[in-house]
Amino acid sequence: MTRKILVLPGDGIGPEITAQASRVLAACQARGLDIEVEEALVGGAAYDAEGSPLPESTLARARAANAVLLGAVGGPKWDTLEDISKRPEKGLLGLRKELGLFGNLRPALLYPQLAEASSLKPELVAGLDIMIVRELTGGIYFGQPRGIEERDGQRVGYNTYVYSEAEIERIGRVAFEMASKRNKKLCSVDKANVLEVTMLWREVMERLAPEYPDVELSHMYVDNAAMQLVRAPKQFDVVVTGNMFGDILSDAAAMLTGSIGMLPSASLNASGQGMYEPCHGSAPDIAGQNVANPLATILSVAMMLRYSLGEAALAERIEAAVGQVLDDGLRTADIAAEGQRTVSTAEMGDAVLAAF
Amino acid sequence: MTRKILVLPGDGIGPEITAQASRVLAACQARGLDIEVEEALVGGAAYDAEGSPLPESTLARARAANAVLLGAVGGPKWDTLEDISKRPEKGLLGLRKELGLFGNLRPALLYPQLAEASSLKPELVAGLDIMIVRELTGGIYFGQPRGIEERDGQRVGYNTYVYSEAEIERIGRVAFEMASKRNKKLCSVDKANVLEVTMLWREVMERLAPEYPDVELSHMYVDNAAMQLVRAPKQFDVVVTGNMFGDILSDAAAMLTGSIGMLPSASLNASGQGMYEPCHGSAPDIAGQNVANPLATILSVAMMLRYSLGEAALAERIEAAVGQVLDDGLRTADIAAEGQRTVSTAEMGDAVLAAF
Ligand SMILES: CC(C)[C@H](C(=O)O)[C@@H](O)C(=O)O
Ligand SMILES: CC(C)[C@H](C(=O)O)[C@@H](O)C(=O)O
Repeated sequence: MTRKILVLPGDGIGPEITAQASRVLAACQARGLDIEVEEALVGGAAYDAEGSPLPESTLARARAANAVLLGAVGGPKWDTLEDISKRPEKGLLGLRKELGLFGNLRPALLYPQLAEASSLKPELVAGLDIMIVRELTGGIYFGQPRGIEERDGQRVGYNTYVYSEAEIERIGRVAFEMASKRNKKLCSVDKANVLEVTMLWREVMERLAPEYPDVELSHMYVDNAAMQLVRAPKQFDVVVTGNMFGDILSDAAAMLTGSIGMLPSASLNASGQGMYEPCHGSAPDIAGQNVANPLATILSVAMMLRYSLGEAALAERIEAAVGQVLDDGLRTADIAAEGQRTVSTAEMGDAVLAAF
Repeated sequence: MTRKILVLPGDGIGPEITAQASRVLAACQARGLDIEVEEALVGGAAYDAEGSPLPESTLARARAANAVLLGAVGGPKWDTLEDISKRPEKGLLGLRKELGLFGNLRPALLYPQLAEASSLKPELVAGLDIMIVRELTGGIYFGQPRGIEERDGQRVGYNTYVYSEAEIERIGRVAFEMASKRNKKLCSVDKANVLEVTMLWREVMERLAPEYPDVELSHMYVDNAAMQLVRAPKQFDVVVTGNMFGDILSDAAAMLTGSIGMLPSASLNASGQGMYEPCHGSAPDIAGQNVANPLATILSVAMMLRYSLGEAALAERIEAAVGQVLDDGLRTADIAAEGQRTVSTAEMGDAVLAAF
C-alpha cells in the first residue's frame, strides 16, 4: 500500500532544508519504498499566500497523510501581526492539536564527531543520549480559559495549566515504552510541591509504574531538572514531562549537545501518524543563502521511517549515511570548528545521498 | 533606631549554616551595627514542634522584623505528609505571600577562585555575573482557581497562570532599576508566542522602557532563554521573568557557576523589607555533619545589609572576607576540587570571621 507523505517546507530556511530531505525521500523511493510525496503551505508562507497559517487544504492533506515532514515556521516578518491567530506558530500548534500529535519525542544526542561543539566540558557530555518525551497537545498551551481581560480597572492576563488523568496516562505509556526499549530509566519532571496539576501528573506516573516493572521510575522537580541537565546530563535516559516544561527542558538538553542543527524530532498520535521536524527554528537570518544545516531534517526523515512507516532498516541506513559524512569531515557552518572548511546546504545533501 | 532581624534556621543543613551567618551578624553588631537578632521556627521543624510549617508567632515576628534570614526548608521526612498545606514548602511560600516579597533577586556569579567547578568550558563562564529578577508572589504559584477535581468521570488537575498589569509593572521597575545600576541590559523572558498572560507581560515591559532610557530592553522566549544560558551565558546582564520561569532559569543559571553553595538571594517587598536565603536547598543527606557550605548564607547577610539595612559598606566587607578565604584556599566539600583539602562548616565560619 502506497503511503502518503506531506512535506511542509514552511518559512525561513524551511524550504532549503526540506528540499534536501525530499531528495533523501526520493532516494528511498528509488530503493523500493512505496510512498507518494506532496507539498503544501504552512506558517508565514501560507499566511502570505492564503491568509491563514494553516489553510484548510493543508490540514486536509495532513490528515490524509501517513506522515508529515515539516521544515520550520515563523520569522520577524509576521511577528508584528496584530491578529495573533494568524501568526505562523499557530499553524504549527494547529497541526499538533488537529492531528492529535500528543507524543513529542525529542532526542538530545551527542555526535562524537561534534563533541567539541558542546559548551560543556567533554567528559560531561561524551556519549550523551537523552530522549525527552514531551506532552504536546495539552497543558498550558491549550488550556481554557485563557485571555487578557479587564478586572477591577486593570488588565489581567491568564492561562490555564490543565491535564486529565487520561492525557497523563497516554503520554506516560509512550514514555515507559520508550524507556523499556532504551536504558530502562524514566525520570518524570513536575513541580508537584507547588502545582496541583503536576501532583496528579506524579500520581498517574506512579500508578503506571507497576505495569512496566523493568523500568525504574524517578521524579524530579523542574527547577532541579534544569540544574541537573547542566550539572550532569548523562544521569538521564528518558525524561517525560508536560508541554511547557518539555518545551524548556528539551531546548536546554538539545543545546547541551552543541549542535542543535543535528537534532530531529517526532510528534505522534494514537494511530502512529506523525509529524517530523528539526528541533531548530526557521533561522530567518540565514534563509535563502544555501548555508543552513539540512541534517536535522534528513534525520527527521529517518525518525519518520522508524516511527510512522515501520521501516527501521532504511532509517538506520540514513543515520549511518549521516554518520559517514560527519566522519568524512563535512560540516555546515553551524557545526564547523573554527577554521574548518564548510559545505553548503546542497553539498551536504549531495554527500548524504552519496553515502546512502 | 535598632533594626530587627529574624533568623529562621529551618530544616536539614539550615541550622548549621544560619549558625555561621549569625556569628557574622554578631560581628557586625560588635562593629556598631544596631540590630536585635532573634530566632523562630519555620518549615518541617515548625511542623514537628507546632503542627504548622508557618506558625502564627513566626509570621508575626517576621512581619515585625526589618529583615529575615532563612536557612532552608524541607526534607524527605515531610514529603509524604498527606495534607499538602502542612508541607515545609508551604511555610516558605506563605512567608513570601504574607510579607508581599514580590521581588526575588537571584545573582549567578562565578567566583574566579572556583571557575573550574563549572560544568561549562572556562572561557564561556569566566567573569559570569547575571542577576535574575524573579516575580515571587504571583503567577502560577498563587493563581486561582487551582485544584484536582472530577470532570466527566475522570480527575483533572489545573492551575492558573495569572498576572495583572500592576504586578508586572512593579517587578518590571525593580528589574529596570537593577539594570540601570549594572550593565544596562535587561532581558525579559516570556512565552508570548503561546501564552496570553505573557503577551501582557511583554506589553507592560515595553511600556516601562521609555522611563529607563539608559537601559536596553530585549525579549526572549523561555525555551530560547534556557538554550542561551547553556550556550553563551555571558550575553545576559539582568533577566526579568515570572515566578515559574524564574524558578527554572535561576536554578539553571546558578548551576552554570558550578558552585550553588556560594549563591545568596534576596526577596523584597515594596517597603524594602526582605527575606534573605541561600539559593541551595536543605540538603538533608549531609545535615548535622558540619560539612555544609555556610558561604551562601553568609553572603545572604551581605545582601541583607545592602538591600534592607542600607549598610553597603558592611556588605562589601563581608563579601571581601569571603573572597579572602577563597583566595586563601579554604574549601568546603561542595566547592573543593579533587584532592583539595576541605574544611568544616564551622571552620569556614571561623575563617570568614577572621578575615572580616
Ligand atoms: C514555535 C513554538 C510555538 C514551539 C513551542 O513552544 O512548542 C516551539 O518552541 C517548539 O518547541 O516546537
Ligand atoms: C521550595 C520551592 C517551593 C521553591 C520555589 O519553587 O519557589 C524553591 O524551588 C525556590 O526556588 O525557592
